[in-house]
Amino acid sequence: MNPAGAARVKNSSNATENSNSPAMAVGLKAPTQLHPVKGVRLAAAHCGIKNDRSARDLTLIEIAAESNLAAVFTQSHFRAAPVQLCRQHLSDEPATRYLLINSGNANAGTGAAGLKDAAACCAAVAAATGVSSTQVLPFSTGVIAEALPVKSITQAIPQLLAGLDAGNWFAGVEGIMTTDSLPKAVSVQLDIDGKTVSITGMAKGSGMIKPNMATMLGFIATDAKIQSDGLTQMLESMVARSFNSITVDGDTSTNDACVLIATGGSTVEVDRYHEPFCEALQAVFEKLAQAIIRDAEGATKFVEIVVDGAIDEADARSIAFTIAESPLVKTALFASDPNWGRFIMAIGRSPLTQIDTERVDLYLGSVRLLHQGMPDPDYREALGQAEMSRAEIRIRVNLNLGDAAARIWTSDLSYDYVKINAEYRS
Amino acid sequence: MNPAGAARVKNSSNATENSNSPAMAVGLKAPTQLHPVKGVRLAAAHCGIKNDRSARDLTLIEIAAESNLAAVFTQSHFRAAPVQLCRQHLSDEPATRYLLINSGNANAGTGAAGLKDAAACCAAVAAATGVSSTQVLPFSTGVIAEALPVKSITQAIPQLLAGLDAGNWFAGVEGIMTTDSLPKAVSVQLDIDGKTVSITGMAKGSGMIKPNMATMLGFIATDAKIQSDGLTQMLESMVARSFNSITVDGDTSTNDACVLIATGGSTVEVDRYHEPFCEALQAVFEKLAQAIIRDAEGATKFVEIVVDGAIDEADARSIAFTIAESPLVKTALFASDPNWGRFIMAIGRSPLTQIDTERVDLYLGSVRLLHQGMPDPDYREALGQAEMSRAEIRIRVNLNLGDAAARIWTSDLSYDYVKINAEYRS
Repeated sequence: MNPAGAARVKNSSNATENSNSPAMAVGLKAPTQLHPVKGVRLAAAHCGIKNDRSARDLTLIEIAAESNLAAVFTQSHFRAAPVQLCRQHLSDEPATRYLLINSGNANAGTGAAGLKDAAACCAAVAAATGVSSTQVLPFSTGVIAEALPVKSITQAIPQLLAGLDAGNWFAGVEGIMTTDSLPKAVSVQLDIDGKTVSITGMAKGSGMIKPNMATMLGFIATDAKIQSDGLTQMLESMVARSFNSITVDGDTSTNDACVLIATGGSTVEVDRYHEPFCEALQAVFEKLAQAIIRDAEGATKFVEIVVDGAIDEADARSIAFTIAESPLVKTALFASDPNWGRFIMAIGRSPLTQIDTERVDLYLGSVRLLHQGMPDPDYREALGQAEMSRAEIRIRVNLNLGDAAARIWTSDLSYDYVKINAEYRS
Repeated sequence: MNPAGAARVKNSSNATENSNSPAMAVGLKAPTQLHPVKGVRLAAAHCGIKNDRSARDLTLIEIAAESNLAAVFTQSHFRAAPVQLCRQHLSDEPATRYLLINSGNANAGTGAAGLKDAAACCAAVAAATGVSSTQVLPFSTGVIAEALPVKSITQAIPQLLAGLDAGNWFAGVEGIMTTDSLPKAVSVQLDIDGKTVSITGMAKGSGMIKPNMATMLGFIATDAKIQSDGLTQMLESMVARSFNSITVDGDTSTNDACVLIATGGSTVEVDRYHEPFCEALQAVFEKLAQAIIRDAEGATKFVEIVVDGAIDEADARSIAFTIAESPLVKTALFASDPNWGRFIMAIGRSPLTQIDTERVDLYLGSVRLLHQGMPDPDYREALGQAEMSRAEIRIRVNLNLGDAAARIWTSDLSYDYVKINAEYRS
């Protein structure tokens, strides 16, 4: 263990530095620098799942033999075939060496045939590399309820193995994208006791987003050395305040998965009490989660919702998610309309909530709307209008009952959300 | 009590008879015949809340002194001022004589001032009629968090009192409309033991619709005689399978209220075991609830979701509402796209559900999509496409676990839903 004071962030390339964003992503730009992580090599290719022949749709990640890996998966009752197989393979020894991720097809709702298809892809990687099938983890994302084109995938594996390189994070993230308008990746380096530790992560997702124990797909790797037990706890803690604190449409995917890899390649050992490392890792998780919201389908707003003064965190999260998922709140956000009666409506209908409406304070940015449950006499429509006109909006509810709080991120509901999701398969 | 066999439905004018509907309502037309209910008189006027001077925005209902009345209200934590006052007045003796309903302003989120405003309106009716203030029930619907224009309302009361008439149901329903594209009213007459019993009801609502113990606003009157205790039980049972089985956007209003009035004017006494009467009354409730969905904001589809084979009804309702409120399901419905992977996703993310995915059967209309959790081998895209192209769509999930079931109604999510709700105040 290194003392906390001996570490500092050296270099950070992240997804939110610049606001020169394309039309449909709020304050998000493509990553410019993704540090290699010692012990991780990637390759990506177009194997034929996506119609666009220039679009990569298959990514292979190889991790060094001494690595530890933790993973969390969707809590959907209908878990996709690759999720089921991942859980089987992770319960087995020896350890994971390859992650095979396809985009464009979710291999979900495909029954026993889907499980067989996912297993065939793992077997092909195993046969070509000499590892066992259970050392290969399969991931799929895309359209639900269509058969996986196994042959297209297995035929591309020799090309992927030949192309493996530590510098291929940019190609790797392209291979996992579906409706994402931009690749989502974050990279940071820390100096710990004179040695450089790298953390690089990537994620995909812009709709069907309300992760529950994991997000759409997220892969975060570090060359720090982290013991296996601590790694799982670290992942769960990071996910709780990042991917599990976002919602676009309340729709949890059948395929959500988030993986944290620690290769040990830097020879620097850390654990979950190493504050500088954990802060840097948490920032990577948060920025990736926020990137999904910034690129949410049709999003024109990036919205942070804070609920504090709650008796417990579950209540705070319940209110925050009810506000975030209300179609009437989301359309008011899209319209930049300070129609904050809709915030009251959403707070009012939150389930399982201990609340005293006569204590509630409500803020839009720095403007107080309600004080102790009554309209603030100093409120003027122009003040609310100014806050709602911003691209980044903050709603805060103080219940004034206790010390618990929650912070989540969401997007608005626009014409383009409907357009994207009405036309996704056509 | 009259024997069940002695009754038959004589005459029914309802909201769904004809499919010559305007653009935004699915299979809904304006009512053509609304039977007077002995002991009920109505009047409506434009008092100045709505900008359109030709639009009625205030309705007064007078009920005979011997009537019984039951009411249910929103379960929102933030109950609007009129809802709070209604509950106070209903706990008082003597009985209700007047219902005063304004549209265009919800008098919600208005604190103590809102309570004072609602009380002033009741006092004005009381002063002009000689009843006590607690014999007047106030109802408001419209924009939240704006002050009620009390003077406009009280100035119109003499005109309303002068205009009270049993034939004014058409004017009355116009006075309670907000974003409704059509008036929603249903009327039926039964012959019970040679006497005519009338049931006439009206409702409003097209957005912020997920009633929880009540709907937006619904007023159903009969001239049957029903004892007070039985009337409340009857209302709760009717509401459970009508207004509490619909959702447009999952958003429960601060102002929901549903009132059932039994004047006794027909001299025919019934109770909740009188099957023909209860069936006729249930049909009125269901048609009014369905009318709200048919006229849902931006709706192009009317969707019935049935979940059966559940272990308990709460599970069945949980799955049905999760499907109904999924933005991804709703946009697929709008697009007439048989992308039924989204149904699986929604079933998968349903909370609090006892489910065995390997037993689930899933149907779209008469087409089976999943059998025992596996894609039906006989399914063809063209079959799903034909079902999804209809204006009225039925989704059925059989969990094959137990005997409990639920049936609910919902709408799709269209560009016009976003447009209506982004522009509501502008």
